Amino acid sequence: MTTSPESEHPIKAYGYAARDTSGLLSPLTFSRRATGEKDVRFKVLYCGICHSDLHVVKNEWGFTKYPITPGHEIVGVVTEVGSKVEKFKIGDKVGVGCLVGSCRSCQGCVTDYEQYCPKNVATYGTPSYDGTQTYGGYSDHMVADEHFVLRWPENLPLDAGAPLLCAGITTYSPLRYFGLDKPGTKVGVVGLGGLGHVAVKMAKAFGAEVTVFSTTPAKEKEAIEGLKADHFINSKDEHQMQAARGTLDGIIDTVSGNHPIAPLLNALTPHGKLVLVGLPEKPLDVSAFSLIMGRKTLAGSSIGGLKETQEMLDFAAKHGITADIEIIPIDYVNTAMERLVKSDVRYRFVIDVANSIKAEKVDS
Amino acid sequence: MTTSPESEHPIKAYGYAARDTSGLLSPLTFSRRATGEKDVRFKVLYCGICHSDLHVVKNEWGFTKYPITPGHEIVGVVTEVGSKVEKFKIGDKVGVGCLVGSCRSCQGCVTDYEQYCPKNVATYGTPSYDGTQTYGGYSDHMVADEHFVLRWPENLPLDAGAPLLCAGITTYSPLRYFGLDKPGTKVGVVGLGGLGHVAVKMAKAFGAEVTVFSTTPAKEKEAIEGLKADHFINSKDEHQMQAARGTLDGIIDTVSGNHPIAPLLNALTPHGKLVLVGLPEKPLDVSAFSLIMGRKTLAGSSIGGLKETQEMLDFAAKHGITADIEIIPIDYVNTAMERLVKSDVRYRFVIDVANSIKAEKVDS
Repeated sequence: MTTSPESEHPIKAYGYAARDTSGLLSPLTFSRRATGEKDVRFKVLYCGICHSDLHVVKNEWGFTKYPITPGHEIVGVVTEVGSKVEKFKIGDKVGVGCLVGSCRSCQGCVTDYEQYCPKNVATYGTPSYDGTQTYGGYSDHMVADEHFVLRWPENLPLDAGAPLLCAGITTYSPLRYFGLDKPGTKVGVVGLGGLGHVAVKMAKAFGAEVTVFSTTPAKEKEAIEGLKADHFINSKDEHQMQAARGTLDGIIDTVSGNHPIAPLLNALTPHGKLVLVGLPEKPLDVSAFSLIMGRKTLAGSSIGGLKETQEMLDFAAKHGITADIEIIPIDYVNTAMERLVKSDVRYRFVIDVANSIKAEKVDS
Repeated sequence: MTTSPESEHPIKAYGYAARDTSGLLSPLTFSRRATGEKDVRFKVLYCGICHSDLHVVKNEWGFTKYPITPGHEIVGVVTEVGSKVEKFKIGDKVGVGCLVGSCRSCQGCVTDYEQYCPKNVATYGTPSYDGTQTYGGYSDHMVADEHFVLRWPENLPLDAGAPLLCAGITTYSPLRYFGLDKPGTKVGVVGLGGLGHVAVKMAKAFGAEVTVFSTTPAKEKEAIEGLKADHFINSKDEHQMQAARGTLDGIIDTVSGNHPIAPLLNALTPHGKLVLVGLPEKPLDVSAFSLIMGRKTLAGSSIGGLKETQEMLDFAAKHGITADIEIIPIDYVNTAMERLVKSDVRYRFVIDVANSIKAEKVDS
């Protein structure tokens, strides 16, 4: 049996894909499976560009198989449902985040932590259960088991809400899990990018008193006036860092560049929690003393399960939380990636897929 | 006003003290305060030798003021109580652990975490509120505010129970705080020394399935037969470490030598907790990835508050938990320290203070 992206499944699909480590994206015709009995097929309307898309198209994490179509912050409208689908009907607005499959029976799956299922299937770039690669949301349509499809809340914007499917759950989940979701809690957010600016909004919606740490003093105005953070600390300013000692119940650290951890641990109260959601390349230097004195926690957190992702979307809709976005057509995606490398976006690119990919298809 | 250890207080006291960084201990006559209205005065019966005593007498942590009388695992019998003491009467058996003072009004103090009070007073070697140094339990008697004095449970041995005042609470508290106190929980204990062997007993009493990690294969028999651990892993054996991947809900790491953390994080299940209670000198290398994938926690923990220490003693009495000890006379203390450096003790030295210090006093 020959398998090519175009012929391995019966339904033709169209998207943007990288072919090699240059990471340059260009149009690709591929295919998607027929709608299974529990499957939801939907037309992609919007897809956010996550920083991890950038790493993966360039194979910076070492596991990329080309061609690869990224995108895991996907919002669309249902066009077909399988015979046993219970939650959705044609015309429903839906979302798909980082996962499209899991075993449904392991400890992680049965406790609604599908992100910990050792057999889970990422939305793009990993083998699905039939052995074919998954393709993400930089494409005209998607198909997924309804368990991995989210109901889109009525009053949540489709475009500015899309990044919540990764950036939203990545910050919401640790705030909840580590008990940083109580009014009056003192929460720090390190880094003001795609994840950080959503973390500030989530923490504020929980009623937290939020301190933003950034190495870019120019972001103070954005943090305080734009995002309604309560305090801003230039993390390169030792005096300011010293003054913050012992003040925070928890910190969500969104920075993926290498950076010192000790001053952040020092900023915690006893029993405080520093949660990493960014992925610095080098190992962190952590002094046992700084954890032991004050019983502090250094933890990491990765996205969230499907149940919690739905809860997060509903919470965002209720509290009017969206990402700050710049809408782009799909043929701008390579320029957007270049700008992302330079952090030149406030704060998330979202591809207007439906409107721009259609035009391309007519042209091609 | 001249202040010398002997004259600064009205009540003469007698103990063993180190005078310099040799750490050698020899008899010292000093003094203790008169019994205040909330004070309990007691004759010291037994005092455990904690590994930190060794560090402090040699000034290895850099803050020792000589002369120093160590000892913070102290059991005694009450000889005098102040007019407003409510919990104790003459003849009661009592214990004093690592703390003899705290501000009683800060966030830590009012939530029963006196160990986090920034103004707390350690049982030995720190300035008390009157400016004089504190002297520990390698001495004939003690005096302390009743808040810092523990009721000794009737059926808890005085000698083998003494080490619980540090080693017991140091391991009991993180098991409780991090939710590792539920029957069936899979708990790892790294290092089988003074702390580790008590950690195994505590975890077993909570109903946990306990795995001991040690670099000394010869300890397998002690761990399994002596301490009733369920499993033993030679942490130098990569094959065994590989087999342990993803199996443990939590680990209490009691090792204070430098050692790799990554294999221990790998041994945790998702949401697993690695808690350091030993103090390795060098910073630990921690990969963010290993924490993020599985939302794992690396934490530290230091002793416990007074309320929890009492709870721990009562728990130990109920479950028949004591330390495995070697009883020594006080004039053996320097030899004991030398043996402690070589880990040549199963597992804690306890000084029979009352019987051996009395003899010395007659001689001197």
